[in-house]
Amino acid sequence: MNAPATITRDLRAEFPGLTTAEGQPWHYLDTAATAQKPRAVIDAMARALGEDYATVHRGVYARSAEMTLAYEAARRRIARFLGGLEEEVVFTRGATEAINLVAQTWGRTNLKAGDRILLSQLEHHSNIVPWQMIAAEVGAHIDVCPLTDDHCIDLDAAEAMLTERHKLVALAHVSNVTGSVLDAKRAAALAHKVGAKLLLDGCQSAPHMGVNVSALDCDFYVFSAHKLYGPTGIGALWARAELLDAMPPWQGGGAMIDRVTFEATTYAPAPQRFEAGTPAITEAIAFAAAADYVDAIGRDQIHAHEAALVTRLRRELGAMNDVTLFGPADSAGIVSFAIDDIHPHDLGTILDEANVAIRAGHHCAQPLMDYLGVPATARASFGLYSTEADIDAFIAGVARTRRIFGKA
Amino acid sequence: MNAPATITRDLRAEFPGLTTAEGQPWHYLDTAATAQKPRAVIDAMARALGEDYATVHRGVYARSAEMTLAYEAARRRIARFLGGLEEEVVFTRGATEAINLVAQTWGRTNLKAGDRILLSQLEHHSNIVPWQMIAAEVGAHIDVCPLTDDHCIDLDAAEAMLTERHKLVALAHVSNVTGSVLDAKRAAALAHKVGAKLLLDGCQSAPHMGVNVSALDCDFYVFSAHKLYGPTGIGALWARAELLDAMPPWQGGGAMIDRVTFEATTYAPAPQRFEAGTPAITEAIAFAAAADYVDAIGRDQIHAHEAALVTRLRRELGAMNDVTLFGPADSAGIVSFAIDDIHPHDLGTILDEANVAIRAGHHCAQPLMDYLGVPATARASFGLYSTEADIDAFIAGVARTRRIFGKA
Repeated sequence: MNAPATITRDLRAEFPGLTTAEGQPWHYLDTAATAQKPRAVIDAMARALGEDYATVHRGVYARSAEMTLAYEAARRRIARFLGGLEEEVVFTRGATEAINLVAQTWGRTNLKAGDRILLSQLEHHSNIVPWQMIAAEVGAHIDVCPLTDDHCIDLDAAEAMLTERHKLVALAHVSNVTGSVLDAKRAAALAHKVGAKLLLDGCQSAPHMGVNVSALDCDFYVFSAHKLYGPTGIGALWARAELLDAMPPWQGGGAMIDRVTFEATTYAPAPQRFEAGTPAITEAIAFAAAADYVDAIGRDQIHAHEAALVTRLRRELGAMNDVTLFGPADSAGIVSFAIDDIHPHDLGTILDEANVAIRAGHHCAQPLMDYLGVPATARASFGLYSTEADIDAFIAGVARTRRIFGKA
Repeated sequence: MNAPATITRDLRAEFPGLTTAEGQPWHYLDTAATAQKPRAVIDAMARALGEDYATVHRGVYARSAEMTLAYEAARRRIARFLGGLEEEVVFTRGATEAINLVAQTWGRTNLKAGDRILLSQLEHHSNIVPWQMIAAEVGAHIDVCPLTDDHCIDLDAAEAMLTERHKLVALAHVSNVTGSVLDAKRAAALAHKVGAKLLLDGCQSAPHMGVNVSALDCDFYVFSAHKLYGPTGIGALWARAELLDAMPPWQGGGAMIDRVTFEATTYAPAPQRFEAGTPAITEAIAFAAAADYVDAIGRDQIHAHEAALVTRLRRELGAMNDVTLFGPADSAGIVSFAIDDIHPHDLGTILDEANVAIRAGHHCAQPLMDYLGVPATARASFGLYSTEADIDAFIAGVARTRRIFGKA
């Protein structure tokens, strides 16, 4: 399948991480774990830490005022990236913290004993454990939506499971293991029909496709910058303004307050209320640079580019009679698989010798591994810089592994 | 007072942030808010985001293993910086998050209705609001230790106030407003005598003096990298191993778990249990580079260097009969003051025109402002790169402000 508009520019040279220490091409097929950074992002970080550096929201001098503008412009940039409003975006350490924030504030306020939360069998631990913790605290119950035969979240099953007791549906927009894409609009409609809110874990959708929270009609959307070619240490929570406004503070400290006395403290409005302390200033600026970079290439182009790579990889792996492919054919840039009698870790280690990096493990999705009946899968995942040469090297490495294991 | 061993190397050239956009020297006297970064830290960050970049704790390929080693080496480096053990160091977003972590885990487990927490009048909001939140939740009470005449925490008063009901004493090791240095060993002895734990807010001590948590005998110590010439987005909690081991998890997600099923989830040991999700990888590495930089110069040398600057600045300001100086003579690199009839913001704005940056405001310490009877103070604070020329420019700027206000 050739996509109509794909990526024609050679992007690899813009990513210093895609070269090995020996100056060889690194065939990096672990972008779902974390993405390499373009020079534009690294430079934005270095400039913010260097000649532009100052604190935000406080200084009476010009450079601090400029840094504050840059920080708030980054918030606007991320809001625009998601199709939301700037006052709906909270900077967090990453998607994990964003989900914990929702669980500990919205959850603690809105969940009561007997309430139910619907998750799915393929969720990342970050979209399971925070809900288990708050559910245990308030006495709520977690229901687990099963998967279809091709390992997508089964929304027919979800529809049958949802009741008026469900207050929240929290689902991966794209699975980090199978790459399966949720029909988020339908999930939103199902959740809203019973009066529940929908949280989307967007870690794997934000980098791989266009995302518009209005069009998706979700209530919360979370993602991490480091998976979007941006820095570590930052991510974002988007929440509908009326939900965010009603959420109590979570972490106390500077910048999130209105007035502090020992008798009584009052809090700032959202989103500041949720950003206690000096924020990740330079990370926010580099995060915005990453959004600029991605949008300059085009999210539809990225999606088409990665879809073409997925199609070829699945075709080649599918032609091997000892390979099990997980997930749907139209996965968003991610292919999980198993080779009979070769442990994923062994495959990963041998591929590494040929400068091919894949992930092997439970991918922070142990309940999905249990469901698939495997302790681990091998996973190849693509980014906007991935090329046919990466697949060539991967396939050659698989053949070599086979020979080493006496399977060729 | 000339310190015996001070800083002789000209460090300014190593800090790109200390030059204005016009290529002029920037007289940056706001290091207590956030420190400028040396090239060594910026380069460490750029390298970690570039040619060295990979995720940690997960990859089966060599570069991820190397990044994991670098990340854990950073933890050891910070432990060594504090005189603690590596398993006692949790990377957080900053000091604020570290205090919230202690409040939400140790606090929620150990504080009960009727228990008491001792804070002081000069605490930063980040060492007040988290305690107010948990105190309100569990029904504990907060007591406020008063200050001495020179605005130090009055430990004689603390001794008289402490009772067996006190479970925690949480104090600034160095005040961010007055620069006053706590006698932390005595505070620890007083706290321990009644069975309470001592938390030290080390934001302003870690950058300005040698710190050894064993010698201080504290139970928790928190600080932020960005005030130590390191990156934003990261800080550290040090906690005694036996306390950290007993603390329940706070944020759920990947990396902090042992085993996840929908029936029951078990958690990793500390410190991993407190680091949910992909950590601030490159920030940890740059944080360690900052510790290296500071220790290469020497914390005793930094302290002596800044003490000499404080002495001169206080002498010059003290000679002006319309200036009120706050805090003790031996403050750690920080001088807060007021000039009659000139609002600190006006002073800060006029100084900015002469490339002198000071802070004017409540410094996230509104209860201290209330105590001092002022809405704001002006604050000049020093770092290892500060020079006599910075003070010259500052004094000239104060004289100019006086003329503008018709006071000369």
